[in-house]
Amino acid sequence: MNKYNIAIVGATGLVGRKILDCLFKENFPIKTIKLLASKRSAGKLITHKSKEYLVEEAKQSSFRNIDIAFFTAGASTSKRLVPPAIEAGAIVIDNTSAFRMHSEVPLVVPEVNSHALKKHQGIIANPNCSTIQLALSLSPIQKSYGIKRIVASTYQSISGGGSESINKFKNEILSAVKKDLKIDELVYEDNPFAFNLIPQIDDFTDNEYTKEEMKIINETKKILEDKNLQIAATCVRVPVFNSHSESVYIEVEKASVNKKDIMTCLSEHPSIYLVDDPKNQKYPTPLMTSNREGIYIGRIRKDPDIDKGFHLWIVSDNLLKGAALNSIHIGKALIKEGII
Amino acid sequence: MNKYNIAIVGATGLVGRKILDCLFKENFPIKTIKLLASKRSAGKLITHKSKEYLVEEAKQSSFRNIDIAFFTAGASTSKRLVPPAIEAGAIVIDNTSAFRMHSEVPLVVPEVNSHALKKHQGIIANPNCSTIQLALSLSPIQKSYGIKRIVASTYQSISGGGSESINKFKNEILSAVKKDLKIDELVYEDNPFAFNLIPQIDDFTDNEYTKEEMKIINETKKILEDKNLQIAATCVRVPVFNSHSESVYIEVEKASVNKKDIMTCLSEHPSIYLVDDPKNQKYPTPLMTSNREGIYIGRIRKDPDIDKGFHLWIVSDNLLKGAALNSIHIGKALIKEGII
Repeated sequence: MNKYNIAIVGATGLVGRKILDCLFKENFPIKTIKLLASKRSAGKLITHKSKEYLVEEAKQSSFRNIDIAFFTAGASTSKRLVPPAIEAGAIVIDNTSAFRMHSEVPLVVPEVNSHALKKHQGIIANPNCSTIQLALSLSPIQKSYGIKRIVASTYQSISGGGSESINKFKNEILSAVKKDLKIDELVYEDNPFAFNLIPQIDDFTDNEYTKEEMKIINETKKILEDKNLQIAATCVRVPVFNSHSESVYIEVEKASVNKKDIMTCLSEHPSIYLVDDPKNQKYPTPLMTSNREGIYIGRIRKDPDIDKGFHLWIVSDNLLKGAALNSIHIGKALIKEGII
Repeated sequence: MNKYNIAIVGATGLVGRKILDCLFKENFPIKTIKLLASKRSAGKLITHKSKEYLVEEAKQSSFRNIDIAFFTAGASTSKRLVPPAIEAGAIVIDNTSAFRMHSEVPLVVPEVNSHALKKHQGIIANPNCSTIQLALSLSPIQKSYGIKRIVASTYQSISGGGSESINKFKNEILSAVKKDLKIDELVYEDNPFAFNLIPQIDDFTDNEYTKEEMKIINETKKILEDKNLQIAATCVRVPVFNSHSESVYIEVEKASVNKKDIMTCLSEHPSIYLVDDPKNQKYPTPLMTSNREGIYIGRIRKDPDIDKGFHLWIVSDNLLKGAALNSIHIGKALIKEGII
């Protein structure tokens, strides 16, 4: 089996660290690993299983002899450094939003649309975390019964905002504990994460949906390859460290589908785990799914009024299948399909 | 103005305490106040503005000379003690689920359906917390444009589970802080509230919706007086101390309604406060609305695909307008309408 020279751009961030972890956990065929980050982080040492890796500054010249470059250092870094990486001969797997909606760039969840990898032109985009778990969950239903309509309300964890958000959240918790967690004193002037909900993730766009909501809308249509999919989303940051949850309403195309049909087609999917046993109070939660690889689905119910309507509760580790692990899966699919 | 002999059954609970507070804050015409609770709590002293009140055991004989009895001690207590209270001549305002769906019992949010008070037979039911903020928010839209369809995903605070849940939540936070908030160590075997989401509030019913979800479905139909309303809900407990939030999708009956129309009809309602200024990142949050009286609505958006579809983010203090304050409002409406 071939082995590859790998680079990780944004290696010191939450997702960058997870990519390094996953490369080893998934037995990715590594020849060498180069950890790249901003000038500020250059010189840092990252330890993985008692081996130390020196972080270098990510520059245009960093990609000589690199076969696969994982990018996860923000959209502006990707815009600046993906073109020279491709030019140097690397295949880029980009976890930022920089190129996702470019028509010539495949946007891939391998379990859903690995066929799109073949038309790559040096870069494959990794979808947004909240999109991956939604698109992957709905793809078996789409294949079996068609999907006309999606309304998603998300419950997104703090780790989705990176280490900075995690640190802010921790400090807020500690400061509330110092005040003896007195409810009445937890009224803040600004919008803290702790003991609060923020119905805004990323900036607002002109249509008053946030960028995060537009990512779910546009990326899901692209991955599921259906421009006419009716999809809307409301994205909310919740005070949970890790794993995103989604309350999802769908309308299928086919009539008279029942819960068992939905369960059956979902359970046949290798990345989906059903946790749906209301009698024993079993359903997925963020704590249950954190540090686990799959997509967890429960609370599957037929709508009380709409024959084609169903409700689902979808939970997944946003740093793993929502980000790092999906990027590794893209890399593995490139190898398996003989593209690299 | 007449003054009334008041009883509060469940006076030592979170909502019972809030009812006592609200009676004074709202200048309710009080002659006497009797605080009732379980045998276990009898003998306790409750202090309000440096005046002490002795808690007595709630018994069948507790309601002699009582004009208005507020019940908030759970459905089983209401089932046992509401009939003798009515028989003793009191008007009961019941904050439990015991009688809400009885066809002869008015279920009232005074700003929505105070006309239903007239047909009372000794008891008026106070709706469930998550229902009140939904029904109140949607009633002006229903009046102006009709509502065909509602899909609600809730983000419900811990205080909705009472003092016991608050204490459990606080202990979980303190125990996580002792472990230095290490994310990887926050994996619990059971389902804690802290840093987690529980997609179950109250027990499951046979159709695999929870009782809380069925309350939203059935009570909203009853309050909005539309049996054909298509409504579904997913109810989730979130690690927030107080104030429930709801991500709500609606479809109106009338075509070509726009966001401004929705804003206008909502802004004319005295209990609704619009906080909807995405450019300045203004929207309601639990911390902003906790200890405040109204219903706060933001993130109002037209659906990208459905002309009649709109999305709203509705937040309100579940202990105030969601419970205690609405009960006081029912009492005031009874006086205003000359029913008592």
